[in-house]
Amino acid sequence: MSTTTVNAFAVTTSHHFQQVQYDVDTNTLKEYEVFVRIAACGICHTDFTVFGIKGQVPGHEMVGIVEAVGPNSQVSIGQRVGLGWQRNSCHECRSCKKGWENLCSDRKTFRDGYGGYADGVVWDSRFVYVVPDEIKTEHAGPLFCAGATVYSALKHYNKDADEDYRVAVLGIGGLGHLGLQFARAFGWHVTALSGSPNKEQEAKEFGAHDFINTNDPEAVKGALKSFDFILNTVSGDVDWNLYMSMLRPHGKLCIVGIPKNKINVDGLAFIAGSRSLVGSLVASPAENREMLSFVAKHGIRPKTEILPMDSVENVEAAVDKVEKNTARYRVVITTKYFDK
Amino acid sequence: MSTTTVNAFAVTTSHHFQQVQYDVDTNTLKEYEVFVRIAACGICHTDFTVFGIKGQVPGHEMVGIVEAVGPNSQVSIGQRVGLGWQRNSCHECRSCKKGWENLCSDRKTFRDGYGGYADGVVWDSRFVYVVPDEIKTEHAGPLFCAGATVYSALKHYNKDADEDYRVAVLGIGGLGHLGLQFARAFGWHVTALSGSPNKEQEAKEFGAHDFINTNDPEAVKGALKSFDFILNTVSGDVDWNLYMSMLRPHGKLCIVGIPKNKINVDGLAFIAGSRSLVGSLVASPAENREMLSFVAKHGIRPKTEILPMDSVENVEAAVDKVEKNTARYRVVITTKYFDK
Repeated sequence: MSTTTVNAFAVTTSHHFQQVQYDVDTNTLKEYEVFVRIAACGICHTDFTVFGIKGQVPGHEMVGIVEAVGPNSQVSIGQRVGLGWQRNSCHECRSCKKGWENLCSDRKTFRDGYGGYADGVVWDSRFVYVVPDEIKTEHAGPLFCAGATVYSALKHYNKDADEDYRVAVLGIGGLGHLGLQFARAFGWHVTALSGSPNKEQEAKEFGAHDFINTNDPEAVKGALKSFDFILNTVSGDVDWNLYMSMLRPHGKLCIVGIPKNKINVDGLAFIAGSRSLVGSLVASPAENREMLSFVAKHGIRPKTEILPMDSVENVEAAVDKVEKNTARYRVVITTKYFDK
Repeated sequence: MSTTTVNAFAVTTSHHFQQVQYDVDTNTLKEYEVFVRIAACGICHTDFTVFGIKGQVPGHEMVGIVEAVGPNSQVSIGQRVGLGWQRNSCHECRSCKKGWENLCSDRKTFRDGYGGYADGVVWDSRFVYVVPDEIKTEHAGPLFCAGATVYSALKHYNKDADEDYRVAVLGIGGLGHLGLQFARAFGWHVTALSGSPNKEQEAKEFGAHDFINTNDPEAVKGALKSFDFILNTVSGDVDWNLYMSMLRPHGKLCIVGIPKNKINVDGLAFIAGSRSLVGSLVASPAENREMLSFVAKHGIRPKTEILPMDSVENVEAAVDKVEKNTARYRVVITTKYFDK
């Protein structure tokens, strides 16, 4: 028996944490399971969905080193790996067989066990991905939720992209700043849509050809019927009819952030130009692997703010930064195993 | 100069008509234009959108014989042809160049001139289609709006259909009874969704494997997460959240009938299963031609009620039947040139 202790931060009451420890017996890891020493973990709005659950350890944008493996592990001890929102799936249903494990109705996510606000985690290795050498540890974490989410949405829904293809990214935050980089790397014309004009310069550095201030009525008017695809990364409500009206024929408005209220939208917008409102949920294991190669090849890089995961105060401060949307652009908390 | 007189039915006040005549000089037809003698015209809910416009001749599901042609006509004198909702497009914009003439923002429809409640019509021959011999005149008309609409939606959005593909048709009327036939001919598992259980037997004759009474809560419960595609043919509002929840992962709910009120729908339904709400507008010329071959090959046949277009009273009675949804399933009005 070989027991390892994990130090983690568990929810007490909403947005408050306490330090907890739990033991992992690395000799009794089940088939496919691995134990990963966590170096860093990004903070995502989706973590907030467990902030009401006492004892829950959030965190689903992890990077670290494989320290122990169970039978049939798909990764090896010593490899630098990343892992994200999903910890397992049934591997038998239609979605799983089609390679859509992320859409398995019996999927297990970070919520179904201990997550990544910790210095170690046990995970099914079929959902653990080797990080290419080109990607630094400080940048890797956010790729496994934010990065995978925008990559999958952009790839899946834009298979028919042509030479004159125009994509917009709505909301320039954790997901949006990656969306701009991916969309540009795919070779499309890219527009940033944001109500914060002070983000224009950075948006262009991330890859946007154009920036539209969504609070400027004239600029908005000029953007009607302009885009083949709008990636809406806003967590919350937006003016659905406005963004539907910015779509070209056969255009798609894609939701990856969860709206707060019901979507209220004019039906004619769908019919008049054969337009769509589509959703996308993170990414499959195959898409995660593709995404990593794409990131390494194109030099895509999350812009991160690094804070130490060394006390309740610091974890709560990091979470607070994300909640108040003051992060530019992704907050990553690091353990003592972090080494740039 | 060779003048032909057209006898038509023009709107007076909502749902009321008068007989009118207008002359066509067949020697001065413009490039691509043709004059078609109309034998029959289907009545579609979309006709109702011009019922408030005095002098308008509705009708956009026509079949007849080419009687005269202008320069560069794409069809020949004597050919039996069909023509529908669209009379022309700009032929120069991105949509037109991509073969999406139906989505051209400068498109001309039946509204932009005299329509098909008449015994003749002038039309751009690039939007006139030769009817295969296998299709009878009494069945042809409804193919050029109802048929083209459901064919295009089913074809465009289901390119990734696999061996275990499940499609539902919501609303078993003019569009729906054709949707069932097309979906079955595509080789998919087909379910009819309707609140009229007395349509079950006919729905199965049209090709449905299953019938679900949407007013039966138990039956509805059994249909959750069941379909890859739902073709919503209802003109009006439906329970959007219910039908979104009937979709499998990556499923699509497609609108082809115009909702009366805004669509109010839960955003999580889109994200949780990467689902979509999509719209579709009739069909391109290429899709119309494909549709005709498909109909001829698979023996698809609109079920029509034939009424004579010979008096104001009879035209109004035919329109009334469609408005009250008592038609089974498409009303077609015929001129003196009609010959089965």
